[in-house]
Amino acid sequence: MNSLPVCQTLLLERHNGVLHITLNRPESRNAMSLQMVAELRAVLAAVHDDRAVRALVISGAGGHFCAGGDIKDMANARAQGPQAYRDLNRAFGALLQEVQHAPQVVITVLQGAVLGGGFGLACVSDVALADHQAQFGLPETSLGLLPAQIAPFVVQRIGLTQTRRLALTAARFDGTHARRMGLVHFVEHDQQALAERLEEVLAHVLCCAPGANAQTKKLLLASAGQPSDELLDQAAEWFSEAVTGAEGIEGTMAFVQKRKPGWAS
Amino acid sequence: MNSLPVCQTLLLERHNGVLHITLNRPESRNAMSLQMVAELRAVLAAVHDDRAVRALVISGAGGHFCAGGDIKDMANARAQGPQAYRDLNRAFGALLQEVQHAPQVVITVLQGAVLGGGFGLACVSDVALADHQAQFGLPETSLGLLPAQIAPFVVQRIGLTQTRRLALTAARFDGTHARRMGLVHFVEHDQQALAERLEEVLAHVLCCAPGANAQTKKLLLASAGQPSDELLDQAAEWFSEAVTGAEGIEGTMAFVQKRKPGWAS
Amino acid sequence: MNSLPVCQTLLLERHNGVLHITLNRPESRNAMSLQMVAELRAVLAAVHDDRAVRALVISGAGGHFCAGGDIKDMANARAQGPQAYRDLNRAFGALLQEVQHAPQVVITVLQGAVLGGGFGLACVSDVALADHQAQFGLPETSLGLLPAQIAPFVVQRIGLTQTRRLALTAARFDGTHARRMGLVHFVEHDQQALAERLEEVLAHVLCCAPGANAQTKKLLLASAGQPSDELLDQAAEWFSEAVTGAEGIEGTMAFVQKRKPGWAS
Repeated sequence: MNSLPVCQTLLLERHNGVLHITLNRPESRNAMSLQMVAELRAVLAAVHDDRAVRALVISGAGGHFCAGGDIKDMANARAQGPQAYRDLNRAFGALLQEVQHAPQVVITVLQGAVLGGGFGLACVSDVALADHQAQFGLPETSLGLLPAQIAPFVVQRIGLTQTRRLALTAARFDGTHARRMGLVHFVEHDQQALAERLEEVLAHVLCCAPGANAQTKKLLLASAGQPSDELLDQAAEWFSEAVTGAEGIEGTMAFVQKRKPGWAS
Repeated sequence: MNSLPVCQTLLLERHNGVLHITLNRPESRNAMSLQMVAELRAVLAAVHDDRAVRALVISGAGGHFCAGGDIKDMANARAQGPQAYRDLNRAFGALLQEVQHAPQVVITVLQGAVLGGGFGLACVSDVALADHQAQFGLPETSLGLLPAQIAPFVVQRIGLTQTRRLALTAARFDGTHARRMGLVHFVEHDQQALAERLEEVLAHVLCCAPGANAQTKKLLLASAGQPSDELLDQAAEWFSEAVTGAEGIEGTMAFVQKRKPGWAS
Repeated sequence: MNSLPVCQTLLLERHNGVLHITLNRPESRNAMSLQMVAELRAVLAAVHDDRAVRALVISGAGGHFCAGGDIKDMANARAQGPQAYRDLNRAFGALLQEVQHAPQVVITVLQGAVLGGGFGLACVSDVALADHQAQFGLPETSLGLLPAQIAPFVVQRIGLTQTRRLALTAARFDGTHARRMGLVHFVEHDQQALAERLEEVLAHVLCCAPGANAQTKKLLLASAGQPSDELLDQAAEWFSEAVTGAEGIEGTMAFVQKRKPGWAS
């Protein structure tokens, strides 16, 4: 049994072949900070070749899954210039690729805010369970930004037709709609029902052979085609241009000042 | 503000950042004539770089969206031979590609007949609203023809599984089924409800930054992969072969004579 | 009219432009033996260029469609070694590709067990009709094996998002769920309703011109992209590794001994 990295933004609990990972920055609705990205990547790397870890369950502390990127990291990047934005953005895309390709079965438990980066993380899970009141959305374009690393995975998850509406109208929707769109597999009405569904799914996963599951997952991903590194690099470049451009500056400033941006008034 | 081309087959109305385009040949249920194709392309080109035009709303005059290709153009092409068929077919595919890649958010309002080319146009819109009684269908194979330029966009819109049934059985279906298939995003029960839904969607679009939306749309289309020029050229060639072959001649003649074609009797 | 091959595992009946193919090994719930694969491929080849055969209807005798691969063939392959497993697996993939590309409209009528290879066959049909109580599933990973030739066609049929849950949890589900997932087009509640739906679908197919339908199907498949030979070869290699590895040996032995495999206890 490999040892797990020490984490400040994650709670880790391992038993019966399952590693439970809890995003643990409840004070910011588990916003995906650079540190959280780095810690998640370290955890995935630590268990990558460990077939005794058969499933990863990702959830959020404090009633929310993940509300998106972290404001403070964005402010720091601002001080450092465009390359910092590209790096910040691209690191999150690398996390999404690594979760997507984890040999374990990845299960997300989605409650409260599932926005931006949190939405992206949901899109690379093998089985997604949602509370019916969870709030999903891609708010980026309403802030003058792009869902840059996220969009390719959303298109792969729910198809172009649904994604174009969601991204270009910054739509918000709940767990029931997420189920209807094929984004999540199960929607439940309370905490208890979510916990029972998770137990049921884990029981099924544990009936499948770990090596066969890992190889099958590889086959499925090869069958589907994958968002390419080239596309994700390009997207990080576009993100950096957007965030440092007039719209991005106005959008993020309006957000901080709790007012409507110029284009919406 | 760029000036818009003068059009005979389209009504154009621009206000509050939205260009409303009405297909206006109600006497032929807005059949997509070569002239209409050319005028639509000219309108798209005129606003392409104008970020002050943030949405394009396409609808049809007289209770129908668009009943497909134009009989008269087909007759003219017959007189000129196979190359004319290829050009006619391919020009429509070029229009579909240009609507698909318009930097603006494209919204279609679908009522009455949404057939053949009209169906194709619906498939390249970012948000599609349908009346519950709208009539969708790909009648081409029942006429001995192919949905040549349209099929690649239908496959991208609703997937291979649904498209193969629709195209190979020439199925007709209504707005409610179109919603269930993921072809349209909203289905409404009367004119008033459609108008209200359109207002709501436009309000959301106008909350998104125009440049961010244009760049995000580019990213989504790059993520999804696109029907290639090569495939659409090939499809035009096959269309020309079909329409000048035995089945196409019998099918279109039977249609004009309001009788069943030989293979259906 | 071409003559059809003499078959021992299939019943063939041809009338009114339709070839009805019944998988006929009811004693093993129509398990897909190597002989059945070879006979199906011979039938497809015999009618390939015959436009007078306009539809192929595939169903199963004795209340089941097809329960998957054949145990006896697997045992024989065991005696012969890894290459025999690769060949056995790859031959089934070749059948799936040939059904997928049959110029005729292929209709499957799905009752009882629709498992493993039977599931794969359903995924390459143009129109799929299911009994509401049909039992669908991909049990391979619970046996320490991979749905090797099948997975690429399942991903193409219902998308990555649904397939990853089904394959990695070895989920079972009924006809109603298959309809909701977009795997089948129609679900019916009894034998009579299935027969009527089949008649209706055939009537629609026969209204479409045979050559136009064949060419349109080619166009749709070109639009969607296809599971490649390379991927299917790779999958056969992985299958062979899995079945001769520790998990595959334990899983198939546990299955025969009607006990839980080691990883599930």
